[in-house]
Amino acid sequence: MAPAEAVRPDKDMQQCIQACLECHRVCLETVTYCLRKGGKHAEASHIRLLMDCAEICQTSANFLLRGSELHTRTCFACAEVCQRCADSCAAMGEDSMMKACEDMCRRCEESCRKMDGGLMPQVPNPEAAQRAADLPA
Amino acid sequence: MAPAEAVRPDKDMQQCIQACLECHRVCLETVTYCLRKGGKHAEASHIRLLMDCAEICQTSANFLLRGSELHTRTCFACAEVCQRCADSCAAMGEDSMMKACEDMCRRCEESCRKMDGGLMPQVPNPEAAQRAADLPA
Amino acid sequence: MAPAEAVRPDKDMQQCIQACLECHRVCLETVTYCLRKGGKHAEASHIRLLMDCAEICQTSANFLLRGSELHTRTCFACAEVCQRCADSCAAMGEDSMMKACEDMCRRCEESCRKMDGGLMPQVPNPEAAQRAADLPA
Amino acid sequence: MAPAEAVRPDKDMQQCIQACLECHRVCLETVTYCLRKGGKHAEASHIRLLMDCAEICQTSANFLLRGSELHTRTCFACAEVCQRCADSCAAMGEDSMMKACEDMCRRCEESCRKMDGGLMPQVPNPEAAQRAADLPA
Repeated sequence: MAPAEAVRPDKDMQQCIQACLECHRVCLETVTYCLRKGGKHAEASHIRLLMDCAEICQTSANFLLRGSELHTRTCFACAEVCQRCADSCAAMGEDSMMKACEDMCRRCEESCRKMDGGLMPQVPNPEAAQRAADLPA
Repeated sequence: MAPAEAVRPDKDMQQCIQACLECHRVCLETVTYCLRKGGKHAEASHIRLLMDCAEICQTSANFLLRGSELHTRTCFACAEVCQRCADSCAAMGEDSMMKACEDMCRRCEESCRKMDGGLMPQVPNPEAAQRAADLPA
Repeated sequence: MAPAEAVRPDKDMQQCIQACLECHRVCLETVTYCLRKGGKHAEASHIRLLMDCAEICQTSANFLLRGSELHTRTCFACAEVCQRCADSCAAMGEDSMMKACEDMCRRCEESCRKMDGGLMPQVPNPEAAQRAADLPA
Repeated sequence: MAPAEAVRPDKDMQQCIQACLECHRVCLETVTYCLRKGGKHAEASHIRLLMDCAEICQTSANFLLRGSELHTRTCFACAEVCQRCADSCAAMGEDSMMKACEDMCRRCEESCRKMDGGLMPQVPNPEAAQRAADLPA
């Protein structure tokens, strides 16, 4: 198959598109919920992660919908952001909306990890990777 | 500094925001140019890369503008897409518009590589990395 | 109800969100199809309309998902772009992919017209409106 | 000139692209500022307007950059959202960041009004128009 010829999305890809689109939607709706609720739900870092997650899910879905080869890179970024967003939702404690958002993010992360083309199948230097992961903005 | 506290963008970050915004713009304008020109310029794989590049540049700029910690992941994806887009423009041969787009993509790639938090400082297994890079969509 | 209090999306709104998301998806997939097919399918004006339609559908869906009051304006723009995109697909002649895209655009247009808040319920001066609609870019 | 032939952006169009891109940037940065500041600055309706404004500015810029005929519709939507966002910023009282965002939104509104192709040059029924403008989401 020539690189130029993107194929019809296969089953994993279709599931990933669906997961990204649903996660985008849930995150956007959760932003509104959190801003209304206020308090820790409306903290800048949490709202920002939800906005990040909604946006990268959209971008990731668009790469998949275009049949772009480089969806491996956007899926990788998407998985990483989904993971952090899920953790941030989990940290909010008992709250059915946050639980639903966390679950969606975890499903989307899992789906994106399958699509990242083995981009980071194993970490050669876990400590360095962890330091990179913990880098502040 | 708490992870939640995104800082004012520093100089490298400001340059990266600017590069992403400019690259987004150039890629979008180049899509129109290539579609009009037709022939190999309008091949699906080339147009798709330009659309990919425009979109990930926009997303990458937005993560940086929000001061998101996870800009490291979007900058990594952006650098990768810019690199491929530059190569695709270079392959079009003598054409000042394509040369300008290639140059912009290379500048944006370089700027994004500086911001990717050492996500992939060295490739442990170049062959595996190459296979991943060559994965068809 | 205070303007600030966006409500849970009602049935029309839910349908409109769904229509916009589906139309976004179909348009993006159709871009790839048209670029591969080449010829008049790949003409700049047609590809541009598909890209326009995909993007405004996304934006319109996002306004609705955020419960934004000003979704009336984005729905109006979306309806207008969908209408033109449907016409452009119809002009391609017999082609099941183009027919599917046309149908989706017409459904999305109809759904968005219901949500535009009576923004343009009747045209006071049809000729002026037509001239505005025919304005070149 | 055939409608299909988008022209090189003229001076007004170039200014409008620039205004949209700058307004997008300022609104995104202001979201972060407001979320950190908390209180009325972080109210859902205000944050939502800033997010709306950032997104429609981006979409409007993209239509202009693609040379799309239907930029008249996205510029109209953009002008409307900018106007509301400026008002919302003004309502925050003395605050240099909000003042800067208000000014940028007013400049972008003015620039977009010039580009809306006389879409709504005069309101045939101001009361109906006002009711439409006041429609809750």
